[in-house]
Amino acid sequence: MAKKSQEGLTVKKENFGEWYTQVLEKAEIVDIRNKVKGFMVVRPWGAMIIENMYKLYEKEIQSKGHKPTFMPTVIPEKNLTKESSHIKGFTPEVFWLEKIKGEGKLALRPTSETLYTPMFKLWIRSHRDLPMKLYQRGSVFRLDTKATRPLIRTREILWVECHDAFATKKQAEAQVQEDIDTTEKIMHQNLGIPFFAMKRPSWDKFAGAEYTVGSDVLMPDNKLIQQPSTHMMGQKFSRAFEAKFKTESGSEEYLYTTAYGPAMSRILVSIISQHGDNKGLILPFCISPIQVIIIPIYSTKNKNKILKESEKIKSALETLKIKTEIDASEKRPGEKYNEYELKGVPFRLEIGEQELKNKSLTLFTRDSGKKEKINITQLSKLTKLGQDYDKRLLKKADNFTKGKITNCKTKQELKKTINSGKIARVNFCSTDVQGEKCAEIIEKQINAEVRGTLASKNEKATGKCIICNKKADVVVYVGKSY
Amino acid sequence: MAKKSQEGLTVKKENFGEWYTQVLEKAEIVDIRNKVKGFMVVRPWGAMIIENMYKLYEKEIQSKGHKPTFMPTVIPEKNLTKESSHIKGFTPEVFWLEKIKGEGKLALRPTSETLYTPMFKLWIRSHRDLPMKLYQRGSVFRLDTKATRPLIRTREILWVECHDAFATKKQAEAQVQEDIDTTEKIMHQNLGIPFFAMKRPSWDKFAGAEYTVGSDVLMPDNKLIQQPSTHMMGQKFSRAFEAKFKTESGSEEYLYTTAYGPAMSRILVSIISQHGDNKGLILPFCISPIQVIIIPIYSTKNKNKILKESEKIKSALETLKIKTEIDASEKRPGEKYNEYELKGVPFRLEIGEQELKNKSLTLFTRDSGKKEKINITQLSKLTKLGQDYDKRLLKKADNFTKGKITNCKTKQELKKTINSGKIARVNFCSTDVQGEKCAEIIEKQINAEVRGTLASKNEKATGKCIICNKKADVVVYVGKSY
Repeated sequence: MAKKSQEGLTVKKENFGEWYTQVLEKAEIVDIRNKVKGFMVVRPWGAMIIENMYKLYEKEIQSKGHKPTFMPTVIPEKNLTKESSHIKGFTPEVFWLEKIKGEGKLALRPTSETLYTPMFKLWIRSHRDLPMKLYQRGSVFRLDTKATRPLIRTREILWVECHDAFATKKQAEAQVQEDIDTTEKIMHQNLGIPFFAMKRPSWDKFAGAEYTVGSDVLMPDNKLIQQPSTHMMGQKFSRAFEAKFKTESGSEEYLYTTAYGPAMSRILVSIISQHGDNKGLILPFCISPIQVIIIPIYSTKNKNKILKESEKIKSALETLKIKTEIDASEKRPGEKYNEYELKGVPFRLEIGEQELKNKSLTLFTRDSGKKEKINITQLSKLTKLGQDYDKRLLKKADNFTKGKITNCKTKQELKKTINSGKIARVNFCSTDVQGEKCAEIIEKQINAEVRGTLASKNEKATGKCIICNKKADVVVYVGKSY
Repeated sequence: MAKKSQEGLTVKKENFGEWYTQVLEKAEIVDIRNKVKGFMVVRPWGAMIIENMYKLYEKEIQSKGHKPTFMPTVIPEKNLTKESSHIKGFTPEVFWLEKIKGEGKLALRPTSETLYTPMFKLWIRSHRDLPMKLYQRGSVFRLDTKATRPLIRTREILWVECHDAFATKKQAEAQVQEDIDTTEKIMHQNLGIPFFAMKRPSWDKFAGAEYTVGSDVLMPDNKLIQQPSTHMMGQKFSRAFEAKFKTESGSEEYLYTTAYGPAMSRILVSIISQHGDNKGLILPFCISPIQVIIIPIYSTKNKNKILKESEKIKSALETLKIKTEIDASEKRPGEKYNEYELKGVPFRLEIGEQELKNKSLTLFTRDSGKKEKINITQLSKLTKLGQDYDKRLLKKADNFTKGKITNCKTKQELKKTINSGKIARVNFCSTDVQGEKCAEIIEKQINAEVRGTLASKNEKATGKCIICNKKADVVVYVGKSY
């Protein structure tokens, strides 16, 4: 295994599908050889990245008032079926447990509205208990019957799910916006993944929600992948579970609830795809398990001296809270270079006899491929260099996404735009149920999807629907998707 | 709910069963009202404690070379049944999923040897890849058919499981000792829970292990509860999965593996039970989600001034990395005092007009109940006070356990010792299979269990077995257990 991973990639990123599979294997992110469809083994390098993503996300949602909980991994059938559109939407996707004698039927949770809402009913008495903002980190399970693909389409998903309860619809809507802001801050600003916040058409919303805002991220193959989505449940679940509270005026009212579900395992797909290159992964500095790898270059004669100096540099960097490792193994330096480039480590410091003498190390930067000298007394520069590094990744990703949207007035233009790997912006009759037929036509004839309307901007439609020619109600975005 | 929790306990700790149930509810640790047998809802206060325990444990095992992974929550039947004594031991306790068309049968993982060992086979080629030390945090599932009890006996367990592979038996044995040392450091030294490391009798070892060392902790009702255990698998699993490696001499050899499983949800039982008192929880300073609670005491006239000062104190404490909250809610100070005492918060700072004038706050310490003055300029003392606090908890728990072991020479003495709530130290024929009958006699006639021999001390038996009168091979410890 170790050997294999050092071989480097044998395929270019243009050949995205193959590249993605090779990167997962050779950078030791996941192992797909455990042979259970849709379930992955996440290897240490992948797990450490995901752990860092969890930390980033949990810190942010906690700072916005969410408190952790642990909910059971199983849901009684009785709960799951209580909100009728919820169960209709999830039924074919549920893993059921074999019946246990004397007990009700249990499902593996596909999502946890039907665990949180009955608890809201017990925990919330009056407006003074509101808002209540809870979350958990953990797995959810969906019996996806389509072809699975590691991290992209899986049956077990590693995620964070926030479930919030409010006294008014307005507050719940503000939460949906806060969730979008969280995606913007963490996924875009920190991890460098730009997205379009799309209010989904009614036929594509979360089962049981009033509406859903999904974040669409462009992949290198120009298809869109859905990243964190936030759902306005309104009073749908609270009505199903009779979850009420006493208002200030003393009357009883159903709760308004929302849910937000950033999936770490899926966001990792975008991190890998967006930033990676022909040499392998390029990890954002802020989540890389190793931010600086020190490669000591020594002979038997000066080994001790070089290693001792490496330890000193490591300590200095750790004082700056920079995650640093030394690879003192017996492999050749070149092998080590390849390995950490493949794994996406942002910075490499080379230290040999020459460097020691000049008190000047060789610094290699993963994204730019630049090699430069850095004085031993100036290691504190690496904090700033790390920030700059992440800004570069962000800018590059923004540039990739920029200009990918084309206004289309006719079906021909739409087809051309989609086939050229872009996203089309079109006038469309409706994102309510009456528009579904036109969306089906786009799907059948152009092999693309109506992703929704912009969530953060109220775009007014002026002309006619690009498909049915009826008065256009909305401006929608159309693209190929995962 | 909020109201209820402020009521305080209505039962004394002597009445342990009832006390335990009340503490769980009123300190808002878990909620048992979700009505799925053996599955709990862990509420924010409980979840934050468990999160802190995870941090403590994961940091320690990582520092000892363990790397994180995420394994699937499900195990194929084929894997689970590969090691015959493993599956025999777990069969009745497994949750199975309903069969999915076209795929093999799947179980919820009861433990993950049969997920890690096939990966060791793929990831380890030669002695150069060893040792390999991996872990995951997550849930495991056991269909326990006995009466379940929140946190104590549950069907979903929140734990950390370490799975390690070695080239030699000696290294694997050293790992078992390292695991015991980890329990000593975290559970005893940090969390203040003393334990007896017991090498289990062969009839009580982990299904598939060569031997098991469990840590037995004394509960207030004088029964023993098993806390983290570590298992020497030897080559049992590696043989079942054909997991070999190339030795330095070039030959092929089966791996030696070990497993260690500290369950956060279960260790919390001992934290609650060991340290709590008639007023509620007493949390170790090192894991309390709030280490210092500031209670501002204000009238409408001086509210702003007092709150502003409270914020300053909070900032000062946070600079010292002390987790601090202000309760500025409308409740009466007395209500707040009760709430945080119930929840086990180590320190309370009261700040009112008088305190402000004298620049001297009132400091309440949860375990001692002591109230004293602390000058605003001396807040940094709290770091040391926190350490002292944890040392006191440790010492008190050690004292409780000390002197609980009594040497017994006859069955009558054994009976008397057990009935007086102590642990008996007795000569015993054997902890191999031939001793099981004598253990059964003890269980039937005295309602107590042979827990094993001391793991860290080779105690020589001299006389005869307390039951069968044959030559005693071992010195064992007998006690009542959960």
